[in-house]
Amino acid sequence: MQRYFALNKKNDLFVLDNGDIHHILNVMRMKNGDFVEVVYNEVLYKCKVVINDSLSIVFDSVLNSNVCSSFDITLIVPVLKEQKMDFILQKATELGVSRIIPIVTERSVVKVNDKEEKKLTRWSRIVKEASEQCKRIDVPIIDSVKCISDLNFDDGVKYVCSTREISQNIKNVMHNILECAKMYIVVGPEGGFSTIEEDKLNDLGYVSISLGSRIMRVETVPIYVLSILNYEFME
Amino acid sequence: MQRYFALNKKNDLFVLDNGDIHHILNVMRMKNGDFVEVVYNEVLYKCKVVINDSLSIVFDSVLNSNVCSSFDITLIVPVLKEQKMDFILQKATELGVSRIIPIVTERSVVKVNDKEEKKLTRWSRIVKEASEQCKRIDVPIIDSVKCISDLNFDDGVKYVCSTREISQNIKNVMHNILECAKMYIVVGPEGGFSTIEEDKLNDLGYVSISLGSRIMRVETVPIYVLSILNYEFME
Repeated sequence: MQRYFALNKKNDLFVLDNGDIHHILNVMRMKNGDFVEVVYNEVLYKCKVVINDSLSIVFDSVLNSNVCSSFDITLIVPVLKEQKMDFILQKATELGVSRIIPIVTERSVVKVNDKEEKKLTRWSRIVKEASEQCKRIDVPIIDSVKCISDLNFDDGVKYVCSTREISQNIKNVMHNILECAKMYIVVGPEGGFSTIEEDKLNDLGYVSISLGSRIMRVETVPIYVLSILNYEFME
Repeated sequence: MQRYFALNKKNDLFVLDNGDIHHILNVMRMKNGDFVEVVYNEVLYKCKVVINDSLSIVFDSVLNSNVCSSFDITLIVPVLKEQKMDFILQKATELGVSRIIPIVTERSVVKVNDKEEKKLTRWSRIVKEASEQCKRIDVPIIDSVKCISDLNFDDGVKYVCSTREISQNIKNVMHNILECAKMYIVVGPEGGFSTIEEDKLNDLGYVSISLGSRIMRVETVPIYVLSILNYEFME
């Protein structure tokens, strides 16, 4: 059953955004009486599609949802070119991240300037669609664009994927984590962080870890790390 | 230094294909006396670019190469639409697969028919370029398109990523592998394998494993599995 995230719920009626209404009517070409899944406030509902003069999404029943994530991962990534960024957002959503923080770094190629609002709108749409597609009941939060000195969080464990760290690899680190409710993972830009940036992250409590000796494209790194986290914390 | 795979070596001169010659002259705009890395027969060389009337690639020295893979993974994937297939080939190369076998399955959407040769040429180019980019000294082998009954190999351990298997998950399986020199991993199409197909694979010795409860797009699955294998066999 197709899944949508509702903007609002008024009694038995759910309010969807215009894109979803278009999707139901013109892409899926649903008929009166068809059913959809609707998520609102992290609760999953079965709803009936009622088409008269307009489209109504009517409550039918509450469904059990398949929640698989018990840990909370924040992925911190540099702003990348459109296609790479879209890719990371889509795959990170599939792999269960809770929050994504885009950052600007010294070696960032993409400048944000006055395009931030437009980018945030685009990114939010991508994670919403990916959440629907992979049947999540929540949508990852996307923060506004930050810089390294903003990454000062005092909850959870914090790692930065490093190209200079040699001894401490991700496997050693994961095997020493017994329990973890919240994790921050920082991935660097093409060419890596500058020494000053990595030092700054270390000062903020981010432990440098090596991902081994493979050379990966920058957009592969978050997927690699998130796959490992899913695997290590698999129930 | 930019890396290229040579077609041939005659005394001190390396022969590159036309695409690489174009890349050196017109994309990288290299000058007489610039250096490149050239791989030939899995040996890595430093070579000088000599431009007279034509381009010559001249032996300078043998380089130590960074070989990180000690295990041999064959990835078996359904033929998918162009963009998804390209994505899998590129990322699987980055993540160190030795061989890729494209297969047709009952639920395959893409028909191969008389386009196989054209597809194989395209796929070979993609894995060659990805190998150069991620500094491999070998290029994954791509087999011709096969069907399930062709997947009868008698070396190595064999797994099929299953949507019906519940108890045997990838983590249990990996933790029970003490040593592994060669592994075959089969990934299914959108909608998964049919019961008959999965039974057939099981008969051929492929053990069904679950990847957990996340719903992933078909092109994410190989990257997920290969990330885990890299991690588990990390030295």
